Amino acid sequence: MLLTPPYAVFIGDATDPLGLKMACSIAYWRPELCVGEIALPSCSTTVGLPKVSLEEAVNQGAKSFVLGFNNAGGHIDEKYLPEIKAAVAAGLDIINGLHDKLTDIPELVNLAEQYGVRLIDIRHPTTRFKTGNGQKRSGKRLLTVGTDCSVGKMYSTLAIHKEMQEQGMSATFRATGQCGILVAGEGVAVDCVVADFISGSVEQLTPDNNAEHWDVIEGQGSLFQPAYAGVTIGLIHGAQPDALVICHTLRREFMRGMPGYRLPSIDETLTVNLLHARRTNPECKVVGICVNTSAVDEQTALETCQMIAIETGLPCVDPLRHGVSKIVANL
Amino acid sequence: MLLTPPYAVFIGDATDPLGLKMACSIAYWRPELCVGEIALPSCSTTVGLPKVSLEEAVNQGAKSFVLGFNNAGGHIDEKYLPEIKAAVAAGLDIINGLHDKLTDIPELVNLAEQYGVRLIDIRHPTTRFKTGNGQKRSGKRLLTVGTDCSVGKMYSTLAIHKEMQEQGMSATFRATGQCGILVAGEGVAVDCVVADFISGSVEQLTPDNNAEHWDVIEGQGSLFQPAYAGVTIGLIHGAQPDALVICHTLRREFMRGMPGYRLPSIDETLTVNLLHARRTNPECKVVGICVNTSAVDEQTALETCQMIAIETGLPCVDPLRHGVSKIVANL
Repeated sequence: MLLTPPYAVFIGDATDPLGLKMACSIAYWRPELCVGEIALPSCSTTVGLPKVSLEEAVNQGAKSFVLGFNNAGGHIDEKYLPEIKAAVAAGLDIINGLHDKLTDIPELVNLAEQYGVRLIDIRHPTTRFKTGNGQKRSGKRLLTVGTDCSVGKMYSTLAIHKEMQEQGMSATFRATGQCGILVAGEGVAVDCVVADFISGSVEQLTPDNNAEHWDVIEGQGSLFQPAYAGVTIGLIHGAQPDALVICHTLRREFMRGMPGYRLPSIDETLTVNLLHARRTNPECKVVGICVNTSAVDEQTALETCQMIAIETGLPCVDPLRHGVSKIVANL
Repeated sequence: MLLTPPYAVFIGDATDPLGLKMACSIAYWRPELCVGEIALPSCSTTVGLPKVSLEEAVNQGAKSFVLGFNNAGGHIDEKYLPEIKAAVAAGLDIINGLHDKLTDIPELVNLAEQYGVRLIDIRHPTTRFKTGNGQKRSGKRLLTVGTDCSVGKMYSTLAIHKEMQEQGMSATFRATGQCGILVAGEGVAVDCVVADFISGSVEQLTPDNNAEHWDVIEGQGSLFQPAYAGVTIGLIHGAQPDALVICHTLRREFMRGMPGYRLPSIDETLTVNLLHARRTNPECKVVGICVNTSAVDEQTALETCQMIAIETGLPCVDPLRHGVSKIVANL
């Protein structure tokens, strides 16, 4: 699925950016693709884009209307239907990263047909995938893996991709989740692929390429996550990574949503991920560690990263605080 | 999904039982649930059931018409539509284990509605699953895992279940693939579940039970299979197995359909499966090894199993040749 920028980013009546993962991702990583944010009068937050009306967005060339929010259940809130319908009627594609599908709402389907626009449910792949074949592909691949979900894999992957581009390397960011897909404009929501086709979908997402080209692949889940490890191992096998980057977050004792399940150590994470990665790429190496240090102050963050670097012999950074140049230099 | 026996097993114009995986499974494991096999005049093979016509099957009380074949592409061959339609018109549910869906054929859907029968595509779960929660459940669970796909996991699981029942143990076979589902009459085709819900679907399939009750769970794929490891790790995490049984087949050098990928050793298989199983059940143990020895003679089979038993310190049998009582005794 290929998305069409520029985007009008709809943030509804949000009062807190925490519920605006989609909007925050595109506003942070691709502000140049956004004409602005559209908010309801009761909205009391911002993702940092200019506030615009639907009409202004259209006049400034917006081609797609992005539903900027996420919620636990993945539901499309019916209260937003009037704004969505108005965007359809204004000729914009609608981009939805929630579990619920726009295409399950008949009146929207009819309206979209009438106005010739697309309802794009990016969590629901429309491609027919093949099962994995494990055959070696040309080009290089880097994959982020984590001690847990939500430890900064997307951020780290995008930071590494940006650093590579700034250094003049040939690199493509490969998105595997809804926010990444919005940022990249294309990709596969790997957690929504049928189980038999997980690694196959990743093989298709990261095809043969020039010998010096890097696919920089967004990781998902964790091999240690009792809910989502299937997604992770399929990603690892399908990616055939040459390089792994371990992502971790400080001060998280238990796995997200899994009381009683302790986070694995970085060392354990490194060993087990490498074990599986070497199944499809025997040359795979871990090239660095990204730590989300937001729970501690600058000085502690720096000391912690230095300590991990000494213990593991690998560059260790907080991508947000320290950048990722040390990791890219280690490729 | 709950299937309704007795079954009329349709084997079409097959010339070889190799293409009749569904039919062979039900005929071997649950002959008492089959009224017979229905063949076209050009059929030159049998799965060992009495040959019956559709009319005879109905007169003998058949409630479901089982499509007995499998093929690489998973396609429903159009040439069989007349027989399928006749079965619908005779009031039978149709049970299909192919990737292709009966419910995608409008004329069949209409006919089924007219005659009040079900079109059951057992590879396509209709349940809405939750994501895994990793919470400890009561009761005991055994799971088969393998060095590869198609090494006899279903056979081994059913043999262990049968042995347990014969010994008066409280046990339920839990099916995770199309043939197993046909044998059990219910289950979840785990390889067809959306990636995010693999382990969750297995948690639902094997719920809380009496402390002494065993769920005997059919394994799928292999952690070492570059195409399907996602299914396997989700099964392992969701099953929270107390006991693992390793399945292996002799004289297979490379993974099925994966030239260049060598089979892992039994030792490696044991270590890596245990590593992941202990994530959700720290008490998990490997309790035995099942080897498909069909490639060698009786004497070599026995000696090979004895050698593996000595090397691993675990009971090792060919379930077909030696039975599985040694493994059940080791629980």
